[in-house]
Amino acid sequence: MFEPPVQRVIDEFARLPGIGRKSAQRLAFHLLHVEEADVDRLGLAITNLRKEVRLCTRCFNVTAQEECSVCRDLRRDPTMVCVVERAQDIAVLERTQEFSGRYHVLGGSISPIEGIGPDQLRMRELVRRIDHESISEAIVATNPTVEGDATALYLARLLKPLGVKVSRLASGLPVGGDLDYADEVTLGRALIGRQEL
Amino acid sequence: MFEPPVQRVIDEFARLPGIGRKSAQRLAFHLLHVEEADVDRLGLAITNLRKEVRLCTRCFNVTAQEECSVCRDLRRDPTMVCVVERAQDIAVLERTQEFSGRYHVLGGSISPIEGIGPDQLRMRELVRRIDHESISEAIVATNPTVEGDATALYLARLLKPLGVKVSRLASGLPVGGDLDYADEVTLGRALIGRQEL
Repeated sequence: MFEPPVQRVIDEFARLPGIGRKSAQRLAFHLLHVEEADVDRLGLAITNLRKEVRLCTRCFNVTAQEECSVCRDLRRDPTMVCVVERAQDIAVLERTQEFSGRYHVLGGSISPIEGIGPDQLRMRELVRRIDHESISEAIVATNPTVEGDATALYLARLLKPLGVKVSRLASGLPVGGDLDYADEVTLGRALIGRQEL
Repeated sequence: MFEPPVQRVIDEFARLPGIGRKSAQRLAFHLLHVEEADVDRLGLAITNLRKEVRLCTRCFNVTAQEECSVCRDLRRDPTMVCVVERAQDIAVLERTQEFSGRYHVLGGSISPIEGIGPDQLRMRELVRRIDHESISEAIVATNPTVEGDATALYLARLLKPLGVKVSRLASGLPVGGDLDYADEVTLGRALIGRQEL
């Protein structure tokens, strides 16, 4: 419908998650009206992304080098590992400044509906690391969803026999939240996980 | 916070309209997980956009050639011009298949608040076209907003003395809509613009 170079940009934008035809069109026409240097910078950043970035050979975090910045950091405790679903979860956890161990990116969570079982996740690589890196504690930081729960249970059964202490992030009320607005499941979890003062 | 190549993509995405930091991050990590060829295609489409696309020398529509496909089409009526705010409005009008003339892209609408007056729009170019192309009728298809209304009124005062018949797109109820849901202003316009049956 549009001139081919414009249509190509619209089509490619529309393939991205959360961007519909209308938004893709708006973005393409936005790029037609900004400084050409800005458009070039966007194009170059995208083109270079996969050339410059790979997965950490140890934990499968995103990195520009052989190992990621967390794995390379000698001050981190190598005996603790925090297991996450996706690489972007690491940034959120790092922002808390409460964890000083290393990570392990599973690449998703167990979801029979989507056909993702333990074999589709990096479980074997985790077990190998536990052997090689004398990891003694694993914190499972999968999402508080049905799939995340299933993955956490599977990990507990997999790792405990190897002598690893396995824990899971607490579920409960979000800090700053209002009891009135909490759903029953979250509130139930908060009750079960109540802490003595 | 992220590895530089990833952070660059996030930063550039976040500069686009309607994409916040969180969405930009989600898009960047999406690109890390899809086929590399898909990412290359997106990057290339963006990089080539401004190299391959320019504005039609006649109507300022987006084109890959000297003149746009509408202006090049000899079956179009050269005596009628439809004046739009932005190039993307042309595609919407073309989809109706109700207009067989040419277009003229103003590049926006009169908005004193944003400092956009007639001199910032392609008014002079339109007057020149009316002289050169023996245009006898202009349909003003600016948006039904305060700015679009002001632009339409300005155009009427500018073009009528040149002997051009000037009309404006009808405002009224959207087809398929419900009277119950129409706002007063739209309903008022529909009443004023009522058509005899």
